[in-house]
Amino acid sequence: MAGQIFWSETIGTAILILLGAGVVANVILPKTKGFGGGWLLINFGWGLAVFAGVYAAWKSGAHLNPAVTVGVWASGADEFVPGFAVNFGHMLVYFGGELLGAFIGAVLAFLAYKKHFDEDAEPAVKLGVFSTGPELRSYAWNFITEVLATFVLVYFVVVSGQTKGSALGPLAVALIVVGIGASLGGPTGYAINPARDLAPRIAHAILPIKGKGSSDWGYAWVPVLGPLVGGVLAGLLSQATI
Amino acid sequence: MAGQIFWSETIGTAILILLGAGVVANVILPKTKGFGGGWLLINFGWGLAVFAGVYAAWKSGAHLNPAVTVGVWASGADEFVPGFAVNFGHMLVYFGGELLGAFIGAVLAFLAYKKHFDEDAEPAVKLGVFSTGPELRSYAWNFITEVLATFVLVYFVVVSGQTKGSALGPLAVALIVVGIGASLGGPTGYAINPARDLAPRIAHAILPIKGKGSSDWGYAWVPVLGPLVGGVLAGLLSQATI
Amino acid sequence: MAGQIFWSETIGTAILILLGAGVVANVILPKTKGFGGGWLLINFGWGLAVFAGVYAAWKSGAHLNPAVTVGVWASGADEFVPGFAVNFGHMLVYFGGELLGAFIGAVLAFLAYKKHFDEDAEPAVKLGVFSTGPELRSYAWNFITEVLATFVLVYFVVVSGQTKGSALGPLAVALIVVGIGASLGGPTGYAINPARDLAPRIAHAILPIKGKGSSDWGYAWVPVLGPLVGGVLAGLLSQATI
Amino acid sequence: MAGQIFWSETIGTAILILLGAGVVANVILPKTKGFGGGWLLINFGWGLAVFAGVYAAWKSGAHLNPAVTVGVWASGADEFVPGFAVNFGHMLVYFGGELLGAFIGAVLAFLAYKKHFDEDAEPAVKLGVFSTGPELRSYAWNFITEVLATFVLVYFVVVSGQTKGSALGPLAVALIVVGIGASLGGPTGYAINPARDLAPRIAHAILPIKGKGSSDWGYAWVPVLGPLVGGVLAGLLSQATI
Repeated sequence: MAGQIFWSETIGTAILILLGAGVVANVILPKTKGFGGGWLLINFGWGLAVFAGVYAAWKSGAHLNPAVTVGVWASGADEFVPGFAVNFGHMLVYFGGELLGAFIGAVLAFLAYKKHFDEDAEPAVKLGVFSTGPELRSYAWNFITEVLATFVLVYFVVVSGQTKGSALGPLAVALIVVGIGASLGGPTGYAINPARDLAPRIAHAILPIKGKGSSDWGYAWVPVLGPLVGGVLAGLLSQATI
Repeated sequence: MAGQIFWSETIGTAILILLGAGVVANVILPKTKGFGGGWLLINFGWGLAVFAGVYAAWKSGAHLNPAVTVGVWASGADEFVPGFAVNFGHMLVYFGGELLGAFIGAVLAFLAYKKHFDEDAEPAVKLGVFSTGPELRSYAWNFITEVLATFVLVYFVVVSGQTKGSALGPLAVALIVVGIGASLGGPTGYAINPARDLAPRIAHAILPIKGKGSSDWGYAWVPVLGPLVGGVLAGLLSQATI
Repeated sequence: MAGQIFWSETIGTAILILLGAGVVANVILPKTKGFGGGWLLINFGWGLAVFAGVYAAWKSGAHLNPAVTVGVWASGADEFVPGFAVNFGHMLVYFGGELLGAFIGAVLAFLAYKKHFDEDAEPAVKLGVFSTGPELRSYAWNFITEVLATFVLVYFVVVSGQTKGSALGPLAVALIVVGIGASLGGPTGYAINPARDLAPRIAHAILPIKGKGSSDWGYAWVPVLGPLVGGVLAGLLSQATI
Repeated sequence: MAGQIFWSETIGTAILILLGAGVVANVILPKTKGFGGGWLLINFGWGLAVFAGVYAAWKSGAHLNPAVTVGVWASGADEFVPGFAVNFGHMLVYFGGELLGAFIGAVLAFLAYKKHFDEDAEPAVKLGVFSTGPELRSYAWNFITEVLATFVLVYFVVVSGQTKGSALGPLAVALIVVGIGASLGGPTGYAINPARDLAPRIAHAILPIKGKGSSDWGYAWVPVLGPLVGGVLAGLLSQATI
């Protein structure tokens, strides 16, 4: 079963990041058809990236996100998806699939936009396709923003499994991600997912990207720890309220 | 049961206002990623804020809005959600949870965008994250616009409980709110919810917001009374037509 | 039963036009919050106007549109909604409710945006809130565009009643209208509904709109006849293909 | 049964291309109401074009796309839609209907926008309504982008038939197409469908379009072979993972 979890999450997260990094590339890299397409385009792109990834990884419950994994674990749900207990050992398998998938997705997005990465652009723009960065840098406040945004996501995931509206399934979580991006993505670019930020940052550091600059490792802990804390808080609060 | 109503509505309305005030902050505060993102972004942000709030408060029927509460009451529905009678006493409990939740949500949105509130901006812009204000001030006409817009919302809520399309549930009400914002939000910014406007206005008055100005209490009655009147009218008309 | 049809269609079409004319007012009248919001905002506004209207008029099948009524009739469907035969007599009742509702909706939209109609704007802009007009005037080609766009709408309505995807119901028809607007609304502004264009044009002629100009009666037949022809063609083709 | 497949796919693909080419015309041809409406408008237009086409062609499984047909075939699914085996002979019938439908749809879109084609515009703009073209021409990299984008589409189609979320049906595939356009359409304009590109290119070559230029046959193989390869890869991978 661990193998099933691993490959399911790998494929799902790869599709998530291929489409998610893709929409950012489309909006900010030079000479694309979507250049300057605006924030709502990015929000829909990421939301539908989640949508596609959830279908691909439905077998393992489609966490696609370590913050969801720890949130489900903290919620005390024995089995989020029937047959798939979220115990400590499985949690590590989920993390592994999520990180590997995010890395693969980032590489594929790089290939899809290879000619546009070859164009001249600010190093920060090229990094922005892979990883998030704040508009106003303040580790403490950026951290709080990521905690809040991830809390909303994971609280929804944990609660919606128990509501009558859950028939919407993949669409509902996609729309929640569109909404979080629209509403809480303004300060930090809404990582809300450690794998989504960390693995593409590693890809950025490794890949032969023309004219690339720093991978900004100084900020890298914020979009990892913030989402994990937000996810745990959501899991715990759900225990108290459901 | 009153306690369940209270906390369910508090959490749901807090998420509603966190995301709703958040999208406005993202579009109008300086140096955000969504700055200048346009009206449709705001419409989707508020619609999906309702979507997220409805899931969080599903247990109590997810009113999230005193105008919905009075509308359901005026419609004569004994039980909007099975087990939750909307009598006069419960109505007050709903109001309490809605107002407290909206206040909490406004504070959280302030924290999420704290660094952007610290930037220089017109006082009216900073107030605009919390509360609505008309483009052309005319208490009578602004009131009429809020009555009409809220009527559409509450009439939908009351009627849709009885249509075959109600399986869409939270998505349907979210889309109705997107539509009302797109269509009837132009003059006043569509409060269509007394709690959504009043509690954040109180938060604006209390919070230590850098460079804030007046909380515009002269206008504050319009987005409270207008939605209440619209909600009652919708409840009454639904009695006549269903 | 004729009375039920009449009032159901009246209320549904009134909500349709209140929101539909509303979104146009929001985008093109001066000093609104949605001014210059773009074509996609208009498309979503109209699509969600249909969404809201369909819920309100679900009892009578929510035609809201004489082109749908004639299309259902031409398709030979005995009963589009169980219990509501679409015979010639009922067809006239549908027409009546649709036209009255559209007139009421136009008046309400005028009231919602009254202060903005009082501002200075080109007469054609003020008419544009009520009725459609072509970008390049050519009665023959404008007519063809309206026939094609309405054909897509009515063919969908007639066919979708028989597909497994029909559970989406009101959402599906709303999205089809968003799509038709995005794709085929460019030349004429997609009336695709005789009542949507004719009754608001009458309202424009009657209402005391400041600085209003001609109601452009020379064009008025195109958005009436084009949709009726498109609807009949769709109904007939559905007979051949289903 | 071959006849049913043929006509179902013909009608569905005609509606797909009428709306798909239509939204491009609306955004890029002169003097339309949607001129300059942006990438997200195009993405929604194409996504909803798929939505409408899927309803129209539900009987035959609504492939509408040779890449889907070969992907389903490569996946080894005996019957994608009950009663419709995807064997080699039927595959040719699907191809025929898809190509004929796409040609008809392109002609209808031309008629809907006839007056706007008569206006002055760059030849490349007029071709752009019919067929895709890359922003940065590089046959190898453009090919890779089309393979990746089509892989995501077909992998979704093949997998979603087996997930609990499949009740969304036509809406899900429409949203996947919106997402692919937003995320992976930037370099080449996302043909992701050989019929969508080839048949309209033939229409462009044949139709009496005022001031038209080359049909760019040098590029025509990329949006045919790329999607076919992506579709086959998705079908094969689905065998390994499901």
